[in-house]
Amino acid sequence: MSVPARTTVAIIGAGPAGLLLARLLQRSGIDSVVLEHRDRAYVEQRQRAGILEQGTIDVLRACGAGERMDREGLPHNGVELRFDRRGHRIDFPSLTGGRAVMVYAQTEMVKDLVALQLAEGGPLLFEARAVAVEGLEAGQPSVRYVHEGREHTLACDFVVGCDGFHGIARAAVPSGVLRTFDREYPFSWLGILADVPPSSDELIYAHSERGFALLSMRTPTVSRLYLQVPNGTDPGDWPDERIWDELDLRFAVDGDWKLERGPITSKSVTPMRSFVTEPMRYGPLFLAGDAAHIVPPTGAKGLNLAVADVVVLARALARWHETGAADLLDAYSDTCLRRVWRAEHFSYFMTTTLHPDPAQSDFDTRLQLSQLHRIADSETAAAELAQNYVGLPFE
Amino acid sequence: MSVPARTTVAIIGAGPAGLLLARLLQRSGIDSVVLEHRDRAYVEQRQRAGILEQGTIDVLRACGAGERMDREGLPHNGVELRFDRRGHRIDFPSLTGGRAVMVYAQTEMVKDLVALQLAEGGPLLFEARAVAVEGLEAGQPSVRYVHEGREHTLACDFVVGCDGFHGIARAAVPSGVLRTFDREYPFSWLGILADVPPSSDELIYAHSERGFALLSMRTPTVSRLYLQVPNGTDPGDWPDERIWDELDLRFAVDGDWKLERGPITSKSVTPMRSFVTEPMRYGPLFLAGDAAHIVPPTGAKGLNLAVADVVVLARALARWHETGAADLLDAYSDTCLRRVWRAEHFSYFMTTTLHPDPAQSDFDTRLQLSQLHRIADSETAAAELAQNYVGLPFE
Repeated sequence: MSVPARTTVAIIGAGPAGLLLARLLQRSGIDSVVLEHRDRAYVEQRQRAGILEQGTIDVLRACGAGERMDREGLPHNGVELRFDRRGHRIDFPSLTGGRAVMVYAQTEMVKDLVALQLAEGGPLLFEARAVAVEGLEAGQPSVRYVHEGREHTLACDFVVGCDGFHGIARAAVPSGVLRTFDREYPFSWLGILADVPPSSDELIYAHSERGFALLSMRTPTVSRLYLQVPNGTDPGDWPDERIWDELDLRFAVDGDWKLERGPITSKSVTPMRSFVTEPMRYGPLFLAGDAAHIVPPTGAKGLNLAVADVVVLARALARWHETGAADLLDAYSDTCLRRVWRAEHFSYFMTTTLHPDPAQSDFDTRLQLSQLHRIADSETAAAELAQNYVGLPFE
Repeated sequence: MSVPARTTVAIIGAGPAGLLLARLLQRSGIDSVVLEHRDRAYVEQRQRAGILEQGTIDVLRACGAGERMDREGLPHNGVELRFDRRGHRIDFPSLTGGRAVMVYAQTEMVKDLVALQLAEGGPLLFEARAVAVEGLEAGQPSVRYVHEGREHTLACDFVVGCDGFHGIARAAVPSGVLRTFDREYPFSWLGILADVPPSSDELIYAHSERGFALLSMRTPTVSRLYLQVPNGTDPGDWPDERIWDELDLRFAVDGDWKLERGPITSKSVTPMRSFVTEPMRYGPLFLAGDAAHIVPPTGAKGLNLAVADVVVLARALARWHETGAADLLDAYSDTCLRRVWRAEHFSYFMTTTLHPDPAQSDFDTRLQLSQLHRIADSETAAAELAQNYVGLPFE
């Protein structure tokens, strides 16, 4: 593949944000180059999120990337909240005017977008490590990167940092320009993949005095399960049987529901963090997805926020491309941040309602249960959860 | 007034809970005696809450205690949330199926109930200091009290502690029987009464980086205003002008709204606390209102919870009186506690959404604002607030 020395939009990072942005730009006739530090195999197999909001589903379909998702994804019309040994179903369509979610692993979405980009799109370079973003103040932006042992410079009109929390894009902004906000939670998730059909057709979010647990799935034959654990937990301290035993205790319910066990193929521990950068732009540099914000995974918002960012940005760039007007680019940060803060709050709400903080009092536990009972008893409270969960309409 | 040595229900405390319970029992043909430690003038003038839920309004009307409330009370169909220098009205009837609240001071409700009790009801003794609740284990309950310098014993079938957080009723339960839950907040309210017509027809709950403020009213010519202040604040450190200046800053809004000033006739500082006792019963002793639970005042739930408790209790005692069945008495605590915990959660939600904690991070402030914007933008989120504010239907 020949890589030009100049493009309109230089995209750093071939995760869902960068790949989808390249796809959307291409459909508006805007050139881009995607630079990805890792190799293709790594990108296509790293385990991340798996719940697509209605808006994300719609965008993937609209840009021709939804075919396999519609064939293999699992449409979900609800989730179960489980507490006090009882389950309560939240029905999405009836509470949200017909919206729902899709279980389709981020890694599958990435495979689809990589294949489309390589087949139909502009340059996508793997093992291309961006090392510097330059010329932002001078209005002559460029990205220096190393590929196949040689350093290159990609000149562009815009740089978009889709390179995650630890990426170089945000770090390229002079200190003092960005304001950051963050919160760390006093617990992590121990996540497993297991070769066993999910024991429920829908996700189960379980509150128990022993800690939070989540039953999810990747496919009809692969379960994805999570346990709240202390920060700093070593997965090596959790042999398979201990994990299943603990899951049994946390999902315990009156009635004859049973958690099926199977071979565990992956174990990892993820800390829980909230993080926001304001603004999400510095001159011709735009930040999208995890490069600009992190949510704890309890509300399944991280991937969907990334998609929402690049939808807003692609529309703004299309307008600039067609008319020269920069108004939507100027509004990018504010437009995204409204959604980001809504998702930050919802993720915080889900996290703090469902996880017993190790330091919390009995009063706090009773408040959690009161809120959960309210959601189970009140259509209004259930609708507030459901509307946030399926996601607000994309702006 | 002659006081019998025996009654069916001995009620300790002539606040709204005790007085309303006596009234409801009388209408079911059940004898009671009310013992109040303070004198009548004190009881009739202590400043407390002022917002009656729809259920409280309905109960007062139904028992013939609503006449002056309906003449002088101020029906309120909404409140304003003010933040980021803008106001957002929450309309109660449209969000709750026609429910609303009434501004009518607790002290006026107490005057009405005292007058009714003295005119039509059973014995109500002022300056009658209950000193012991006895015979609970033996099933021969009695209350010892001191009145006009002499000690008396009132034998009864049931004792109801309506004597507040510091009362003797809860203290009469052997240690280890009751489980208590509590939370203290790192701020208090400085409350004032001022002889000036309220600057808004409806309450204004204001979030600002300087702290929370609340504009309320007692009558069309008397304003009631509150400022969040640090715990331990001395009202003497707040001359009138400082109070008005600070209120101006916290209520500041774009547009030409103005806070009218007037003579301040009362200043006091109230700490913010949550407290719950489980269960609310010990044998023939029942706890109601503040004797069993405290909420921070932000959601205006304290008085209304007390009313809900005695409505449940009066119904249970009426059933026992008519049929001998104790089922509703046995359910009293669980029935009340569901509502209590809902109100505890709502009061916590209102308190923590509207008050900047002195120790909170900028992230936490953004979360508060995100939640407030959601309430302003979403009918569902507004309805969840409104339904809790006007109060759930009495069980």
